Order: sequence, then C-alpha cells, then structure tokens
Amino acid sequence: MMNEKNVLLTTLLENREYLNVRKELLEMNEVDVANFIEEAPAEEAAVVFRMLPKDLAADVFTEFNTDMKHHLVVTMTDQELYSIINDLAVDDAVDMLEEMPATVVERVLKTADPNMRNTINQFMQYKKDSAASVMTPEFIGLKEDMTVREAIDYIRENGQDSETIYTCYVMDAKRVLEGVVTVKTLLVSELDKKISEIMSKNVIFVTTDEDQEEAAKIISKYDFLALPVVDSENRLVGIITYDDAMDVMTEETTEDIERMGAMVPSETPYLKTPVIKLAKNRIVWLMVLMITDMISGGILASWQEAFTAMPILISFIPMLTDTGGNAGGQASTLIIRSLAMGEIRPKDWYRVWWKEARVAVICGFFLAVFDVARIWIMYPGQYLVGITIGIALFCTVVMAKSVGGILPLIAAKLKLDPAVMASPVITTIVDAGSLLIYLNTAAFLLRI
Amino acid sequence: MMNEKNVLLTTLLENREYLNVRKELLEMNEVDVANFIEEAPAEEAAVVFRMLPKDLAADVFTEFNTDMKHHLVVTMTDQELYSIINDLAVDDAVDMLEEMPATVVERVLKTADPNMRNTINQFMQYKKDSAASVMTPEFIGLKEDMTVREAIDYIRENGQDSETIYTCYVMDAKRVLEGVVTVKTLLVSELDKKISEIMSKNVIFVTTDEDQEEAAKIISKYDFLALPVVDSENRLVGIITYDDAMDVMTEETTEDIERMGAMVPSETPYLKTPVIKLAKNRIVWLMVLMITDMISGGILASWQEAFTAMPILISFIPMLTDTGGNAGGQASTLIIRSLAMGEIRPKDWYRVWWKEARVAVICGFFLAVFDVARIWIMYPGQYLVGITIGIALFCTVVMAKSVGGILPLIAAKLKLDPAVMASPVITTIVDAGSLLIYLNTAAFLLRI
Repeated sequence: MMNEKNVLLTTLLENREYLNVRKELLEMNEVDVANFIEEAPAEEAAVVFRMLPKDLAADVFTEFNTDMKHHLVVTMTDQELYSIINDLAVDDAVDMLEEMPATVVERVLKTADPNMRNTINQFMQYKKDSAASVMTPEFIGLKEDMTVREAIDYIRENGQDSETIYTCYVMDAKRVLEGVVTVKTLLVSELDKKISEIMSKNVIFVTTDEDQEEAAKIISKYDFLALPVVDSENRLVGIITYDDAMDVMTEETTEDIERMGAMVPSETPYLKTPVIKLAKNRIVWLMVLMITDMISGGILASWQEAFTAMPILISFIPMLTDTGGNAGGQASTLIIRSLAMGEIRPKDWYRVWWKEARVAVICGFFLAVFDVARIWIMYPGQYLVGITIGIALFCTVVMAKSVGGILPLIAAKLKLDPAVMASPVITTIVDAGSLLIYLNTAAFLLRI
Repeated sequence: MMNEKNVLLTTLLENREYLNVRKELLEMNEVDVANFIEEAPAEEAAVVFRMLPKDLAADVFTEFNTDMKHHLVVTMTDQELYSIINDLAVDDAVDMLEEMPATVVERVLKTADPNMRNTINQFMQYKKDSAASVMTPEFIGLKEDMTVREAIDYIRENGQDSETIYTCYVMDAKRVLEGVVTVKTLLVSELDKKISEIMSKNVIFVTTDEDQEEAAKIISKYDFLALPVVDSENRLVGIITYDDAMDVMTEETTEDIERMGAMVPSETPYLKTPVIKLAKNRIVWLMVLMITDMISGGILASWQEAFTAMPILISFIPMLTDTGGNAGGQASTLIIRSLAMGEIRPKDWYRVWWKEARVAVICGFFLAVFDVARIWIMYPGQYLVGITIGIALFCTVVMAKSVGGILPLIAAKLKLDPAVMASPVITTIVDAGSLLIYLNTAAFLLRI
C-alpha cells in the first residue's frame, strides 16, 4: 500500500503537480512524509518541505536523518528556521544540535527564542548517555490541590506542547515531585475530587545522572509510558518517554553486538560511517587479538619436532581450535546476553559453570565419538591417533565452555563490559588451551 | 530504596506480621510485589498472594514467572481461580496457558466464564509469532457518529477493562476499521463535534497473520502506543500495545544473538533451560562446523611436506586463521545487525563490498606491516618468511572482510536468516581460504 502511494507521489512530483503532492502528504503519517522527502531529488526535497503546513513541518523535520536536517537548516532563511526550531520538542532539538557543526549550532541558537535557547543550552550540558540526555522538559505538571476538573482543563489548554499527556506529574511549589496520576484515572474519577486524593504517591523515578540504559530498563520493566527525572534536590526536571526508551535499548543492544564482534561501537549507521572510521573501530581489536595469538604460535613452534615426527597431527589443528572457539563462543554469547537482560548475575557463577560443564560433557562426548570413528575409518590402523583426537576434543570442549561461561561473569564482577568477553577473545584464549591439551595428549599417548 | 523495602518486608514476613506486609505491598508497584512474592519462601508466597485485594491480585499474577503461576494455579480453589482468570487480560491468559501442562489448561478453561473461555480458545488458535498471537481484544472501539462527549463518557465507563484507552479505534456496524482518534485529540476537541470530524482516516494496521516482528517494527517506527490488527475482511479483532512490541523486539534480538553464536535459539531464560536442551541447541552447529573444518584439515594434510621442510611455518597458522576469522566476523556482525535494523538491504551488496574492501585494505596493511617487522626482529635473516606472512595476512583480511560482508546479504536475498552467517560460519569458511592463500604464497616465495 505504502509503495503504491510512493509511486503516485513520485509521478506527481515529476510532473510538478505540487498542490496534489501536498494534498497527498497531508493525509500521510509524518514518518512516511519524512521518508518520502528524504528519497526525493535534493532540489525537490526543499521545495516539498517548504509546502508543508507549519505544525506538520516540525513533526516531519524531527524524523529526518542528520544529513537532511543539515541540508535544510543551511538553506533556510532565519525566519523559516525560527518557526521550525521553536516548534521542535526540546529533546529533538538537542539531539539534532549535537550532530551539527559548530557554525550551524551557533546560528540555530541565535535564531531560537530566548526561552528555547536557555533550555537547549541547559540540556546540552547533560552528560552523554545520562538519563537527562534523553529526557524532555515538556510534560504535564499538576498541583495537589487542583480538582480533577481543573486538571482536565489544564491538560486541554497545555497538552498540545507536551510530549505525552497521559502520565501527569504532581509537584509542590518548589517543583519537588510528589505524585503521579494518569489520564485514565482522571477520566474515571469524579470531577470534584482533589488530585491529592487520587494520585499515587509511590513514584518510581531516576536522577539526571543515572545511566540512560538503566532508565530504559525501568520503563521496560514496569511498562511505563514515561519515567520522571529529578535533580539532586528531587525537583522534577523532565521525563523520558517510552519511545525514547525503545530507541535507547536498541542503541545499547547494537553497541553490545558490535563489542561482541570485536569492534569499537559506532554511533552512525553502517552506510553512513566513513571507511577510515570503520577501520579505526576494527583495527584495535584485530591487533590485540593477533598479538595474543603469538602465544598459540609459540606453543606450536616449541612442538615443531612432534609435527616433523608425525606430520598428520598438523591437519587436526583447525578442527580442534575452531571447535574449541565455537563451543566457548556459544557459552559466552548466552551468558553475555543473559547478563544484559538481567537474568543472571556474577554471583551465579557456580550455577553457570556447573551447567556449562554438564552441557560440555554431553557435546564433547558426541563430537569425540564422531571424530574417533571418522579417523579410524579414514586412517586405518591409526587407532591411537583417533583416541588422541577424541580425548583432546572432549577436554577442549569442556575447557572452552568453562572459560566461555565464566569470563563474562568475571568481567561483569570487575565492572567491565561483559560483551568484550565474546567469541573473538574466547577463541584466542581457548586456542592456546586446546593446543596445549592436544600436544600433551599426543605426547603421552603417541610418545612423540 | 527498593532494597531497604525488601529487607523490611522480609523481616515483617519472618515475624508473620501479615497485616503489615499487606499494608506495605499495597503501596508498591505490582511488578515489585510480584518480584517480592517470587523470592519469598514457597509456603509463604501463596499466603501473601492470597492476602492481596482482588484487583491487585490479577495484576501481580500477570507478572509472575511460569513456575510461580503454575504453583499458584495448582494450589488454588476453583473459586479463587475463577476470580483471577476472569480478571486477567486475554493476551496474558493465553500466554500463560501456552506454557502450562494440558491438565492445568483444561481446569483453567473449565473454570473461566463462557465469554472468556471462547476468546481464549480463539486466541490459542493463532499461529505462534504472528501479530495475532501478541494482540489483545480489549480496546476502546468508537462509532463515527458519536460526539466527543459521548466518546469520553464511553471511555469513562469501559476504560477499566481496556489494555490502553489512549488510542481509540472507530469501527462501522460490521466492526470494519474506519479511523483512529487519540484521547489527546478528544480532550482538546469541542464536546459537540462528531468523531467522524476529528478522527484520522489514514490508519496504519497489520493483519492477523503478519509476523509479530514486523508489527513491532511498525510500532517502533511510528512511535505508536498501539497498532490495530484486522482479519481478512478488515474487521478489527485486536490491538498490539507498545509494551508487548518492546518484549517482541527484545525476544527477537535475543534469538538473533543466539543464532549469531551458532546456537538454536531457546525460549526459556538460561538458568531455567535444562542441560539436555542446551546441549541439543548447541551440538548441531558444533557438528556441522567441525565437519566443515575437515576441508581445512585436508588442505593442511596435502601440504605436509611443506611443513616438514620448513617447520616454522606451522607456528603462524593460528595467527593467520584467527585474524581472518576475526576480520570476517567483524564485517558479518555489522552487516547482520544493519540488516535487522533495516539500515541496509540485499541490493546494497555492491556498496557494502566496496566499503569492506577499502576497510580491509587499511586494516590488512597495518597488520601486515606490524607482522613483517615482528618476524624480521624475532627471526633475523628470515626476510622471505616475513614477506610471505605479510602478503598472506593482507590477502586474508581482504578475502575475509569480503566474505563476511557479502554472505549475510546473500542469505537475506535467499530469505534465510542472515544471523546464521555470523562469526562461526564465516570463521570456518575463511579458515580454508586463508590456509590456501598462505600455503600458495609460501610455495611461490619460499619455493617449498
């Protein structure tokens, strides 16, 4: 359905039927309008955007990517800019400015009206990744002694500028947070009741310097629509809404996944990240892991004579080290994710290890039996080689799963990011271990 | 704060001051009440749960884990069960029953009142992972010809049983979806206006058999509070709320991460998953990858003489294959995540490859220079060995990043899950490639 609409719009635009384009756009969701304008030819994009009514323009502007915002801001007159900026939600304005060059920031701040400018300046001080950095100051604040009727009237008049009207916060004269009341409660309460009678005093909140991920987790845990943020004197300074919490969680998960893939996380989408930046994000870990692999290289070098005596032993190296890496990586992947979801804690280390050990015994047994059989068939007469591989494989899997299960927990205990203890690091560590197991088993059984 | 409260509650419970326990619990959020009861001793848990007032009891019950629900359902009288079940949201009741043994399901259905039983039965038919499987039938449905005043009165009377009242859906006599109106719009509109004048006709919806992940993505894209679900005749049958969408997204991300770690995804939390199940989820991929590693083993076996002639070559194998695996894994991790986020599509393959190739040239160059220098220092006189490793490393990184970047896109194009093309599979493929590059470079330069 959306595609038909886009085809229609593109045709209208090519024929320069701007009035019809405008008519169609007015019926669409602002997210779709933004997507359509972003994909239109650059010179048309600005024309179409200027045709939008003032209210819609700000909503659409918020949805644009950074490049498009930058392009538009640079080409706007001061008056156009004034109208857009003052209609933006403060948190969206701040997000935008944080990604713009200093000259643009300066011009935007100069153009905004003094109230907006002060708020933006204040918000730009908050620490990156703090709860305050994702909050908005636009919420419905009520007083205890209002009646339900007064509260509803207040929402009717002030609701338009709030990020959400559905959760309202009750504050005293000094803006100290006292309670919370939902529009649902307001609607089902008698109009003459006082807010103090119907509000809930058990308010769950965060402070401005709390981690944004922690705030997002609270919103998700309690299924809140919004979470209040207070300063050090318990004064309500803003709220975080569920949609921003969803974005924070997605962002944090992407960072975790990138760290698990042995990269420094990037804040821009893949296709927008410059090659140099991608290379920088990756080379650190590649280098660290490569240097650590010298340990495995050293082990192999010191056993050179064993391989000269029995060259066939070389051919089992990839199978043993990779299986160790995979087995350990499976364990660490599960444990890292479970830690991120709050399903396990470092103090569960014994239960984790005991579980991994039993899983390893089962997996290791079947893999070893398979390999012993395969070697006995492929290399008739090499019974001891088969046994050597079987024992080495079994011990490698048990060692790998123990290491993979425990290292992320140790990292968490040491307040490091457990995501770093993912497959690449585990593989490098397990490689050295599996080679030692392999070569010592071979030395013992094959007397090399 | 929460911890102090828990200590207080635990003390009260130990002293059997049940009335005080109840008083404290009444002031807490239902999620925290559920957590407290879950962690209380088993015999106390049921006692405390029975003390809760009827309304709170159903809210708290919804938050329990499966084991706790099962324990309580089994120990409840029919009357207690009746009261809880009929107060549950339909989607929560269905979720619960899907995880219970058949005898419990039978008893619950027998106890529920006929309406509830029919709805539950209908909902249990919907396909797992479909949009319908996460929707709830409890929403506010309005008619076009209602006035705003009538609509608000309707919400006042029927709001208590709805999952959300904030987004209302407008249906005709046959329940066909016609429009959507938010409570915010209702509150700021004149009381005598007709719903048809203020509703938005551009409703974004999904059908019952749409994938739940698709529905969650729409909710996240448009920042909806709820998304309507219609049947094949466009009749509104339920809504999916933002909190369920958040859960779906978290669940799907966990599945992706598990697949990327070479495991069959599990639906239960780690500590609750039996060892046998964990082993089963892991052994398939371990076996497949181990068998594929026989290719690398075969390559090494056929070059045995080279190693006998120059045993030092063995010691560079882990460094080369691991670096290849890590470099390819970095690329595939980023591409898989970008695909999942909708940031890139299979048709972007050329841009991805060109980007990866340039990143690989930069990373490969620095790694190679480092290693050549290291070998020249550690093994004086072995200039050609250094050059061999440098060239092999550079080519391996370029090959690995190309493979890692492209394979997930091919999987996506073939409608397979790209997450399968993560580090473990890439490592196994890249291993064989890097060994071939290494040995052929060595043969050429070192004439072995």
